[in-house]
Amino acid sequence: MDVIVGEKDKVLIIGATGYLGRRLVKASMDLGHPTFVLYRPEVASDAEKVQMLIGFKMQGATLLQGSLDDHNSLVSALKQVDVVVSAVAGNHLRHAVLEQLKLIEAIKEVGTIKRFLPSEFGMDVDRMEHAIPPGAYVFTDKRVVRRAIEKANIPYTYISANCCAGYFLAALAQLGHFMPPTDHALIYGDGDKKCIWVDEDDMAMYAMMAVDDPRALNKTLYLRPRGNILTQMEVVHTWEKIIGKELKKTFVSQDEWLSSIDKVAPPLQIGVAHLYQIFYHGDLEFEVEGPHGVDSNDLYPNHKYVTAEAYLKRFA
Amino acid sequence: MDVIVGEKDKVLIIGATGYLGRRLVKASMDLGHPTFVLYRPEVASDAEKVQMLIGFKMQGATLLQGSLDDHNSLVSALKQVDVVVSAVAGNHLRHAVLEQLKLIEAIKEVGTIKRFLPSEFGMDVDRMEHAIPPGAYVFTDKRVVRRAIEKANIPYTYISANCCAGYFLAALAQLGHFMPPTDHALIYGDGDKKCIWVDEDDMAMYAMMAVDDPRALNKTLYLRPRGNILTQMEVVHTWEKIIGKELKKTFVSQDEWLSSIDKVAPPLQIGVAHLYQIFYHGDLEFEVEGPHGVDSNDLYPNHKYVTAEAYLKRFA
Repeated sequence: MDVIVGEKDKVLIIGATGYLGRRLVKASMDLGHPTFVLYRPEVASDAEKVQMLIGFKMQGATLLQGSLDDHNSLVSALKQVDVVVSAVAGNHLRHAVLEQLKLIEAIKEVGTIKRFLPSEFGMDVDRMEHAIPPGAYVFTDKRVVRRAIEKANIPYTYISANCCAGYFLAALAQLGHFMPPTDHALIYGDGDKKCIWVDEDDMAMYAMMAVDDPRALNKTLYLRPRGNILTQMEVVHTWEKIIGKELKKTFVSQDEWLSSIDKVAPPLQIGVAHLYQIFYHGDLEFEVEGPHGVDSNDLYPNHKYVTAEAYLKRFA
Repeated sequence: MDVIVGEKDKVLIIGATGYLGRRLVKASMDLGHPTFVLYRPEVASDAEKVQMLIGFKMQGATLLQGSLDDHNSLVSALKQVDVVVSAVAGNHLRHAVLEQLKLIEAIKEVGTIKRFLPSEFGMDVDRMEHAIPPGAYVFTDKRVVRRAIEKANIPYTYISANCCAGYFLAALAQLGHFMPPTDHALIYGDGDKKCIWVDEDDMAMYAMMAVDDPRALNKTLYLRPRGNILTQMEVVHTWEKIIGKELKKTFVSQDEWLSSIDKVAPPLQIGVAHLYQIFYHGDLEFEVEGPHGVDSNDLYPNHKYVTAEAYLKRFA
């Protein structure tokens, strides 16, 4: 890992019990940051989340009760830390992205936060103005948050983490499935658009390496593990090699795919739209451009990320 | 730990991704049992459960696809193991206790299973014939499973684990809360009925120590960590000592408590009924009786269980 040696910034994680949040807490502590976790009083009625929080505490994190709806609690928490990393939910099940505007107000008021990472961890939202409904709102809302951060002159890093391995790679991008098929796979178009598949623990580690890295100040950090920039077909072939068997493949045209939106449940409709962006429109096929973009390969070339092949081998 | 040295029985865990199931998998592997995990094909649509399963596999467990509804899959899985431990859901959110009757049929057919632990992990259901609705059905259904096991002459151990620390102790038995209050607590009656508070990791470890212990064959093993047999008031005082503050207390009479059943949502009604059994009716106030009952203190006196005080200190 490429880490700056010296006194470590104090980090506050918001959304810590979520899918990425819990990994951010771990990465923060693994990198030696004094780590603070904001938890809502309502969490007391969720035994599993309480136990996760207590687990963080037993590993050394400091728990702070508070809420995005309680301004004073935010100000009090922010005064104890240098860096804020938000992982509030921004998925099809729960969408709290715009609630971060309250956090931005508090960060502005306190005025001492050295870096803010808003909840991003997906595609670069500033490149997604053309996105189709019903998937577009995620990008739109994250853009609103970015503009509010910039307007408030808050030092930031945007983590464009690309595609979560557990949600995209695990089932070779089969909608609504998270284990790789052993018989049959849908192939989007010709399966030849490049996607970027990133293990969630790596996402968290890259993000936490960036929090005190001056090279990532006021930049978008694109997570692009070199070996994991692969087309769907390349990923399918990797899996076929692992299991020693060729999958039956159904090639789905763009029109067929888009017309399937009306045939699935609303949460999956968002998935259909997002898969369209990546696998038909090719929205991950671009090179990082300066001066506002930085590439994880340039900043952290020595980080040993999980390769797509190693990830899929876990299932064999 | 008191473990039998020698070749270890192969263990199949059913319900492995659940609250207790995941702890049973860990305890099984910690004790060196070759550990097999049954997972339903539908799990592929739950990314979090898939990742938990893959985590088990990476730690050495063998994943077997199957389902209680697929007899052949059960028979095939059972032929690979010596012991079966079931942790199918038996709570107010999901209740799959009676589905174990299908498992019992398959165990009977295979005929080689040396020990079956059905999903119990609560109060001794054979002592709960007097239980009040709507909480009684849990006990009733578990009794049906016990009788089916005995009728099929399947070697068994029933784990009467008493009260999960995370659900009972964490909030000093305040209904629907799982963090200890710092201002005010409801006290049931005079708070003087003995309860038995058991950390879930200890529950799993005791259960897994019993699977190949001849002293637990065809017995009910009562988990009764000596120092954790405490009244609600004793637990409240322990917490008050930890935080150095006296809580305000509202003493609730039995009639008041029972009348509250109609005032809460259905899932909580079950909780009200179960708390009545323990804290008013005193259903955990009994001594273990032979020859069918054995006490965890007698079998595993050296197991270092989590004390109620140590558990509550995590929250301070």
